[in-house]
Amino acid sequence: MTGVSINGFGTIGKRVADAVSAQPDMSVVGVSKRSPNHEARSAVASGYDLYAADPDRVEEFGERDIPVAGTVGDMLAGGDIVVDTTPSGVGETYRDLYADHDVDVVYQGGEDASVAPQSFCARANYQRSLEASATRVVSCNTTGLARAVTPLDEAYGVESVDATLIRRGGDPTQTDRGPINDIVPDPVEVPSHHAPDLRTVLPDIDVTTTGVTVPATLMHLHSITVSLDSDPTASEVRDRFDAEPRLELITTASGCDSCAEIQEYAQDTGRPRGDVWENCIWADAVDVSDGRLTFFQAIHQQADVVPENVDAVRALAGTADARESRARTDDALGVGM
Amino acid sequence: MTGVSINGFGTIGKRVADAVSAQPDMSVVGVSKRSPNHEARSAVASGYDLYAADPDRVEEFGERDIPVAGTVGDMLAGGDIVVDTTPSGVGETYRDLYADHDVDVVYQGGEDASVAPQSFCARANYQRSLEASATRVVSCNTTGLARAVTPLDEAYGVESVDATLIRRGGDPTQTDRGPINDIVPDPVEVPSHHAPDLRTVLPDIDVTTTGVTVPATLMHLHSITVSLDSDPTASEVRDRFDAEPRLELITTASGCDSCAEIQEYAQDTGRPRGDVWENCIWADAVDVSDGRLTFFQAIHQQADVVPENVDAVRALAGTADARESRARTDDALGVGM
Amino acid sequence: MTGVSINGFGTIGKRVADAVSAQPDMSVVGVSKRSPNHEARSAVASGYDLYAADPDRVEEFGERDIPVAGTVGDMLAGGDIVVDTTPSGVGETYRDLYADHDVDVVYQGGEDASVAPQSFCARANYQRSLEASATRVVSCNTTGLARAVTPLDEAYGVESVDATLIRRGGDPTQTDRGPINDIVPDPVEVPSHHAPDLRTVLPDIDVTTTGVTVPATLMHLHSITVSLDSDPTASEVRDRFDAEPRLELITTASGCDSCAEIQEYAQDTGRPRGDVWENCIWADAVDVSDGRLTFFQAIHQQADVVPENVDAVRALAGTADARESRARTDDALGVGM
Amino acid sequence: MTGVSINGFGTIGKRVADAVSAQPDMSVVGVSKRSPNHEARSAVASGYDLYAADPDRVEEFGERDIPVAGTVGDMLAGGDIVVDTTPSGVGETYRDLYADHDVDVVYQGGEDASVAPQSFCARANYQRSLEASATRVVSCNTTGLARAVTPLDEAYGVESVDATLIRRGGDPTQTDRGPINDIVPDPVEVPSHHAPDLRTVLPDIDVTTTGVTVPATLMHLHSITVSLDSDPTASEVRDRFDAEPRLELITTASGCDSCAEIQEYAQDTGRPRGDVWENCIWADAVDVSDGRLTFFQAIHQQADVVPENVDAVRALAGTADARESRARTDDALGVGM
Repeated sequence: MTGVSINGFGTIGKRVADAVSAQPDMSVVGVSKRSPNHEARSAVASGYDLYAADPDRVEEFGERDIPVAGTVGDMLAGGDIVVDTTPSGVGETYRDLYADHDVDVVYQGGEDASVAPQSFCARANYQRSLEASATRVVSCNTTGLARAVTPLDEAYGVESVDATLIRRGGDPTQTDRGPINDIVPDPVEVPSHHAPDLRTVLPDIDVTTTGVTVPATLMHLHSITVSLDSDPTASEVRDRFDAEPRLELITTASGCDSCAEIQEYAQDTGRPRGDVWENCIWADAVDVSDGRLTFFQAIHQQADVVPENVDAVRALAGTADARESRARTDDALGVGM
Repeated sequence: MTGVSINGFGTIGKRVADAVSAQPDMSVVGVSKRSPNHEARSAVASGYDLYAADPDRVEEFGERDIPVAGTVGDMLAGGDIVVDTTPSGVGETYRDLYADHDVDVVYQGGEDASVAPQSFCARANYQRSLEASATRVVSCNTTGLARAVTPLDEAYGVESVDATLIRRGGDPTQTDRGPINDIVPDPVEVPSHHAPDLRTVLPDIDVTTTGVTVPATLMHLHSITVSLDSDPTASEVRDRFDAEPRLELITTASGCDSCAEIQEYAQDTGRPRGDVWENCIWADAVDVSDGRLTFFQAIHQQADVVPENVDAVRALAGTADARESRARTDDALGVGM
Repeated sequence: MTGVSINGFGTIGKRVADAVSAQPDMSVVGVSKRSPNHEARSAVASGYDLYAADPDRVEEFGERDIPVAGTVGDMLAGGDIVVDTTPSGVGETYRDLYADHDVDVVYQGGEDASVAPQSFCARANYQRSLEASATRVVSCNTTGLARAVTPLDEAYGVESVDATLIRRGGDPTQTDRGPINDIVPDPVEVPSHHAPDLRTVLPDIDVTTTGVTVPATLMHLHSITVSLDSDPTASEVRDRFDAEPRLELITTASGCDSCAEIQEYAQDTGRPRGDVWENCIWADAVDVSDGRLTFFQAIHQQADVVPENVDAVRALAGTADARESRARTDDALGVGM
Repeated sequence: MTGVSINGFGTIGKRVADAVSAQPDMSVVGVSKRSPNHEARSAVASGYDLYAADPDRVEEFGERDIPVAGTVGDMLAGGDIVVDTTPSGVGETYRDLYADHDVDVVYQGGEDASVAPQSFCARANYQRSLEASATRVVSCNTTGLARAVTPLDEAYGVESVDATLIRRGGDPTQTDRGPINDIVPDPVEVPSHHAPDLRTVLPDIDVTTTGVTVPATLMHLHSITVSLDSDPTASEVRDRFDAEPRLELITTASGCDSCAEIQEYAQDTGRPRGDVWENCIWADAVDVSDGRLTFFQAIHQQADVVPENVDAVRALAGTADARESRARTDDALGVGM
């Protein structure tokens, strides 16, 4: 039983906590939170031991009848591995504290790649993090790319990838983020930072990415062109995708013709928080012409890295190989819509 | 045990089905659906008997391996009461079929008020629908107004109500609805249709409403001024609201400072589909000055009428009085965040 | 001829510069700008002498071939009055510099009311700023309220005002501002800060305001209820509004049924930047019931204070009385759609 | 002097009318309008003779004091060429009427390509429409693609084009169009209809397009990858683009980092309606790697086909060759920011 601490019970952290909690071979040692807000309250309601990220604010929790079990240091002392889900750039500032407590660490893609000896995507390079002391789960967009490109490369050989990432402007509750009515090249440079990030897990891929931010909050949408070394039919590619548990083929016939419909479907099937852990690939729009494959995929920025974090814990713990870990994770979560 | 059919398994229908299903004294006889889409599939996955709304499309369900138990007529034959959750204006076209099958009917607020002998809000006028053969649950906005105004009138006497209803442009999946970047007086007339609709359940209230539609999909937001016959303190009004199970006082201290945060909280607490059945009233913004009360409330258009539909079924069935029905409904659903 | 400097050639400043430039009795001495961006370039293209707001960045202008005439101090030395259109809160930091150069100052509503001896709305209290050394034009929303309330008070007596201000989230180019998909009580308190701001120009008005921010960029929209001391007909109120040059009655019959249509109309009629200087009041939605007047008005946040700034300059200069100044301003700009 | 009628004084029609009116060798014979709305009023204010598109509604214009000169037939009788700017699909229904009046016709890209013997983009295939009796200006997105691809093909040879078109959901005043908060593959098929449309003007180009619709109203944004037969530097490509009057290189240094900023710049420079006739290409984001060019361009859907319509008139009239016509059009309009 691997004891896992979650440092930062926010958008990603609360999902990782629930996902870890669902695994038969892991347990949640505790979760930390800076503000005594409704997320802190729901952490307690979910049965997690709650630790104060900021020792100076412990009293505030008490004033609102939210019980606190101690500080982050206390939490780390009780576990084997910490998943760092603090805001981008904050994780690095915890590095020394993690070392002091001798815990292995799973960082998120918001940290610089140098935060860990290697980066991680369960389908692309699980093995490299096996029994390492730290790893970094690449960001939601990069995870989405790596999951789709890896099986294509295995089956057909990938010559080059061109991906346009149409990025949601913020998560649903980030009301201070825009744009409201604009389409923004973000960044205004080619390639965007996603291409080098993808190479942290797939070093040999020739990839160009562009990023564009739009006024939406639900999911990212990727429009991807892949030049393949061979010339499969669209139907063969669909079958190849369909064989991957974390790639979900969706159809317009089922009414899933937009990101919002995918989220509605996830909610209707009882997914916690309407989470979509899988890349959603539109079956009707898979096209291959002269070995050039084009397709759309939707990526739920709040959820797609969640199973990856679980696998990353197992990789560091060394308790399963890649295939076994992914199967356990997917089975426990119910991956596959 | 009241047997309930749900005609129209869409945004409202699927929620009503699940809510009925959760009641100890009701059972879902079946649900109907026009298209064999993902909602139809999830109806079956939820264990509901599925009936085809359009006999000509039965085959389409078969082609997608979605089992169909019969037509709407077959469904009606098996139940005592039908909840009509077809699109606005369609309910009325079913009136004869419902009469033929001798079932009592709960219509929605999208129908004209003349569709039933009286309209319904469980807190305002439950009694009037007791053992009636049909009733009409008023729309989401009107339900929200009636729930808040009724206890104010009981406690303080309401002289007049002025409400600005800031309406979401569409539900999350209604991608063909706007506006994208506009603020639209909707309707461009004062009062809006909400005022007369409110009087269908609270005939003696002097109310003026204005409606404005904005580019958002999550909830409606009401800014309400009520002239009271007496002059309570803001704190007294808060306590009065707090005593109502379907009014939820929320605080900025908990981080719930917008409609999106409320929905996040509902998701975090495990609410199905993130549903918010309660009027959410900001405690910090309740203000009384010289007997003039001003406050904000957020209304989840997809969910607030769901407990009302359950109560309407009980009123028609005559199996409980108003207080008892509301308590049973709220208990079974888990109303109160 | 009053010589006017414009400190801050941004959203408001560039409009004020063009409006001042159009007056027969004023001239633009110069405009200042911090960044050598496209606005700086268009200032030069418009024939304005450009001054660098930040002496350390003068060179940057040169590198892009944007000629700079000096610093803000140089600009102030050449004029009689400065209109401060720097960002909110920055104006106050210039107070000493303005005093050093012995120029009169028009501040904007983003500054605290204490920045000047009194605040200003040309229709409400022009006289109070006559030959003063400084004044503060109230914000766009407050200006919109003051313009509508003043003639109502004169004609019918205003007992109380309740206004819901549905605020655009940001200006069109403020891509870092949200919300994207939310309706936000802003502030979560009643009354909002607009009520006390209105009283800086109309001290005797009993007013309650609520503010709500939505995902739109074009205009604010106000839903206003006014309790009057008498009981005019809606038609009489419309005529009263129609007699005010800076109140524009618009009709749905003309197709102007939303903020976006108003802006389209302004663009079609050749207004610079599509600016709408007038409060736009929907004639069809003016309603009076028992002395309670309800109406909608749209306010172009980028433009409605522009004529007020021009009048404020004249008030400080003492070159015209209120009526004369407003007439000159409106005539020069072409107010009245 | 070519006499030009404009059938449909809406979003495109009013712009084409003004553009034709600005040409030294053309005059506007008249414009037609269905509804007596504010656009009809501004047509008259602009000095155009106004013709009623619907004979049954002539009276409505009179009731609002909007003078009407006759019917569409009357208008056609007075001109040499008609530009059909009626809504998509309506143009074709006028074909017989146009033939009856023996006028040459410029159709828009909303019509099926079969409406005219060939389609038109001034930079790609002007010559093919020379002295023809009808032509069809391709849609805004296709025009944007053709303008950029043509010079690339001439200079470097184009092997293949992959373009992701991020489409605005509607024009600013189309408040009934969505989506509000969604990213929608539109269409859910690869290639989108834009690829075959591009081949109507560039028949030999190997092109794949994908379309995605987002909640924005200002401009379309294209992310384009072009495989070239040679391997120019990014700087060479920028120079190549810069040599094209209807391609505008923009820089983030000037502050133009989004579609909204481009429109602001256009408004500041006094462009009518803030129109952007040029493809706006971000200079900083032009990238070439191994002969694979990637870049972003923004396309103002309301304006980019306007100069093309003027050129199409000249092509049909046979009064200038391609180069001469484009130069005259650009000079009269002020193309080039």
